[in-house]
Amino acid sequence: MKVSKNIESLMSSLQILPGVGPKTAKRLSLFLLGENKEGAKNLSSSIDTALNSIKHCKICGVLNDLDECAICTDLSRDEKYLCIVESTSDLFAIEETNEFQGKYFVLNGLLSPIDGIGPDELKIKKLLNLCTQREIKEVIIALNSTLEGEATSYFLLENLKEMNIKVTKLAEGVPAGGDLDYVDNNTLKRAFSWRRELGDKS
Amino acid sequence: MKVSKNIESLMSSLQILPGVGPKTAKRLSLFLLGENKEGAKNLSSSIDTALNSIKHCKICGVLNDLDECAICTDLSRDEKYLCIVESTSDLFAIEETNEFQGKYFVLNGLLSPIDGIGPDELKIKKLLNLCTQREIKEVIIALNSTLEGEATSYFLLENLKEMNIKVTKLAEGVPAGGDLDYVDNNTLKRAFSWRRELGDKS
Repeated sequence: MKVSKNIESLMSSLQILPGVGPKTAKRLSLFLLGENKEGAKNLSSSIDTALNSIKHCKICGVLNDLDECAICTDLSRDEKYLCIVESTSDLFAIEETNEFQGKYFVLNGLLSPIDGIGPDELKIKKLLNLCTQREIKEVIIALNSTLEGEATSYFLLENLKEMNIKVTKLAEGVPAGGDLDYVDNNTLKRAFSWRRELGDKS
Repeated sequence: MKVSKNIESLMSSLQILPGVGPKTAKRLSLFLLGENKEGAKNLSSSIDTALNSIKHCKICGVLNDLDECAICTDLSRDEKYLCIVESTSDLFAIEETNEFQGKYFVLNGLLSPIDGIGPDELKIKKLLNLCTQREIKEVIIALNSTLEGEATSYFLLENLKEMNIKVTKLAEGVPAGGDLDYVDNNTLKRAFSWRRELGDKS
């Protein structure tokens, strides 16, 4: 027995979200329709507004509301430092640390020949052009430490080396607050080889 | 640094959902805007459609699209059996079992003097009128086994007893598939007192 066609279709629309199954979709639907109609209205209009305005920044590729994003056009940020990330979400994560004051390039993917994602799809030519146009001091590769991430890092390194640009990558090691007992072997191995002398300020 | 005003406002709109914190909101927003724009469009329009059509059934109080819901107007269901539930969500849960072929009354809340919810807010007069109008054989109270649920059950029982109506309530005991070791004391106590003889078919 279908109690309500429209509630059922709201439930299935919610199930496209990662991590939302039928039970959660039911709970969320009834919450939106029964307890928080105002919030539901806001949610629907924020989705519409964001969908209508969202685009990739022409320079760095981040998802945002502008043709050229707030970071690319911010003159107070040092464009001699370029951080390469896989996605908008990774850029947000780095921004939240307040650690980096340079600029970004968002690949919007990783090299993956099986899925047909090559250097053209990731706009690597554009990235290399950017590096010749700017006086780059350092490119920081901040990609995930997965197979695709490593392959993409290696490919970028090969190309940037030819241009005599200093290339660094994020340190790999024990996560902050992590318990050595629970850290996997590979991470521990890398934490050993990336160790640094205590008192080293560099 | 706000990277995008519209993504930020989508993130805060998503955080009204129960169980969605800032990290999940970020993940969901970027999923909707980057990977599943079609799904995002559907979600926003399903919310609008549901919000515009949703109302409480005039008879039983369930949230649905119609003035009188599909269950109340279904002549094949036995109106001599009336199941009282707290919310639309509980009604859905019972419907999914396919165990009950009677009708419902949805209280849309539980008695709670502290929050100012008395018999009038729960439309108990309407419920009692329904019981006099229909030839009720049995009222099944299917409320949560919480303090408010118990108080509401007791209040209903008192009122229905005067009308000489048989009142039952859902069995309390060990959950199906439950491990005795992990069942709390109160549940186990009740499971003992509600035990029945094996071979009992009633």
